[in-house]
Amino acid sequence: MAKNRLTTEEFKNGILAGEKSVLGRAITLVESKSVDDRKLANALVNSILPYTGKSFRLGITGAPGVGKSTFIDGFGEFLLNIDKKVAVLAIDPSSKISGGSILGDKTRMEKLVGKPNVFIRPSPAGIELGGVAQSTLESILLCEAAGYDFVVVETVGVGQSETAVKEMTDMLLFLSIAGAGDDLQGIKRGIMEMIDLVVINKSDQIDKEILGEVKSNFAHALHLFPPRAAKPDVEILSCSALNATGFDEIGQFISSYHQKVSRNGFFEENRKAQKISWMNRSLIHLVENHIQNNDKLKVNVQKFESLVSDNKLSPLDAARQIFELLNLV
Amino acid sequence: MAKNRLTTEEFKNGILAGEKSVLGRAITLVESKSVDDRKLANALVNSILPYTGKSFRLGITGAPGVGKSTFIDGFGEFLLNIDKKVAVLAIDPSSKISGGSILGDKTRMEKLVGKPNVFIRPSPAGIELGGVAQSTLESILLCEAAGYDFVVVETVGVGQSETAVKEMTDMLLFLSIAGAGDDLQGIKRGIMEMIDLVVINKSDQIDKEILGEVKSNFAHALHLFPPRAAKPDVEILSCSALNATGFDEIGQFISSYHQKVSRNGFFEENRKAQKISWMNRSLIHLVENHIQNNDKLKVNVQKFESLVSDNKLSPLDAARQIFELLNLV
Repeated sequence: MAKNRLTTEEFKNGILAGEKSVLGRAITLVESKSVDDRKLANALVNSILPYTGKSFRLGITGAPGVGKSTFIDGFGEFLLNIDKKVAVLAIDPSSKISGGSILGDKTRMEKLVGKPNVFIRPSPAGIELGGVAQSTLESILLCEAAGYDFVVVETVGVGQSETAVKEMTDMLLFLSIAGAGDDLQGIKRGIMEMIDLVVINKSDQIDKEILGEVKSNFAHALHLFPPRAAKPDVEILSCSALNATGFDEIGQFISSYHQKVSRNGFFEENRKAQKISWMNRSLIHLVENHIQNNDKLKVNVQKFESLVSDNKLSPLDAARQIFELLNLV
Repeated sequence: MAKNRLTTEEFKNGILAGEKSVLGRAITLVESKSVDDRKLANALVNSILPYTGKSFRLGITGAPGVGKSTFIDGFGEFLLNIDKKVAVLAIDPSSKISGGSILGDKTRMEKLVGKPNVFIRPSPAGIELGGVAQSTLESILLCEAAGYDFVVVETVGVGQSETAVKEMTDMLLFLSIAGAGDDLQGIKRGIMEMIDLVVINKSDQIDKEILGEVKSNFAHALHLFPPRAAKPDVEILSCSALNATGFDEIGQFISSYHQKVSRNGFFEENRKAQKISWMNRSLIHLVENHIQNNDKLKVNVQKFESLVSDNKLSPLDAARQIFELLNLV
């Protein structure tokens, strides 16, 4: 970031003017771990805050192989055709290990790449989830300031990434496919209750009866959760992302969802709660980082972990002793 | 606690000798919020740690009205009859509001009350969940040191109490009843995946066919989660707690569960992980308390919350500014 570094003002103006290259550099800035970059990033994010909040943030999750990239490519084109500006971001805490698969190959989104009203940002690699999630939240804000109406946040569904996506979006879409029999078995623990819309992809490749069965399996599973007062009931739709069928219904659901939660106040209320929650989690993250980055504290924590493991010190007393080492004002 | 205060040594000796009155006073001590009591409590818990860890910790949850107290009373008697010493504790974060229902009326456990090998402790009232959960964890340790083989931890299922119980026990039993049709609908989000054993109570009052249907509903719902390698498959059993039927099968399941997780190492591994996790959560709890109890910090946090809510400050920057106010070493 040192070379040709932009000022906060230059970043801000470029973003507000919708310059994609500036937006891209701004996201690189918020992803940076350098202390100087972080200062500039804070100033930048604060300066663009008045221009944020106007997009619809759509989280997308689903197991590998269900066709998330193809879906985003196809549905993104559908959104473009109804005059939406579309930004695509990704959370992938595994990219460090896998070498980065998610959106890493931009050519997988052939219909979107290079279009004027599209911004695609591959997953940040090599940072732990806490960091990834925070920079993704800031990236969403930057995209909103740049005028994107739809911010799609994709997750590969590793670790806590769905929770992070849920906590920064307005709606979570679960993409699945209809395989043989019991399609729900692979679903990760705790995901079902976060879902706002299920879409069965590749519906052209399966028998209508099987599709009906898969839908009814999902309906049954979703029925196990209490009804939701503030949000529309979860629907189970289907599409063929490759053949661009089924997008109308999905678009209609999202639109009626958006209308309902806007009218009853849940949209704003949820966003406020998300912001406070990010503030609190970031604070905890900073305290944890502080301990990890302080050699003396880190050694002590490891010592306490051993003592606690071996029943030589109570977990609560160990916490108290670490807390005292922090020497808070 | 000021009057006739015992020393750490007196507490310890009384507990190790199995004196219930001393155990009761020790639990009152760990529940206390006074700074002096806390110091003594830390010393006491640390001193009895070598004598802990030998019980089986059974968490019990379920909606109000399913008969948890009657179940614990009946199943507790079953355990007594196979020569187990039984301690019963409760987590009830709602007791502040409801006035305390859980185990509050000890006479509800007619079969257990007053028996030599039984210790029953009503729910601590008037503390927030974080505090309740921590003192319950310490109460478990104290009961173990006092020689109880079985520590039953009951929750009313309000707020995060199931999670807290899950994180301090070896197994979670979900008690339910068979009503009309869809019995699962009332289940709280995220509970299903924590369950190790489902018991349908009041089985004498329902038709066998309906019982079968309820069991198959549970089986279907549980089937949605991935199989568990380290733990036995979840079973769905039934009983009539009032008539003391069905306890044999429940006892057998618990016993085979205990054997499997002991042999494959999961039991020890899980307990170690729980301890480290309690240490980390307690540390966060202490930092949060510190902020809440420091007027200057508290006012600042409230100011930052408003700024963040109103899009005047980024959540991450607000966190950073609060972090700086903490002035960590």
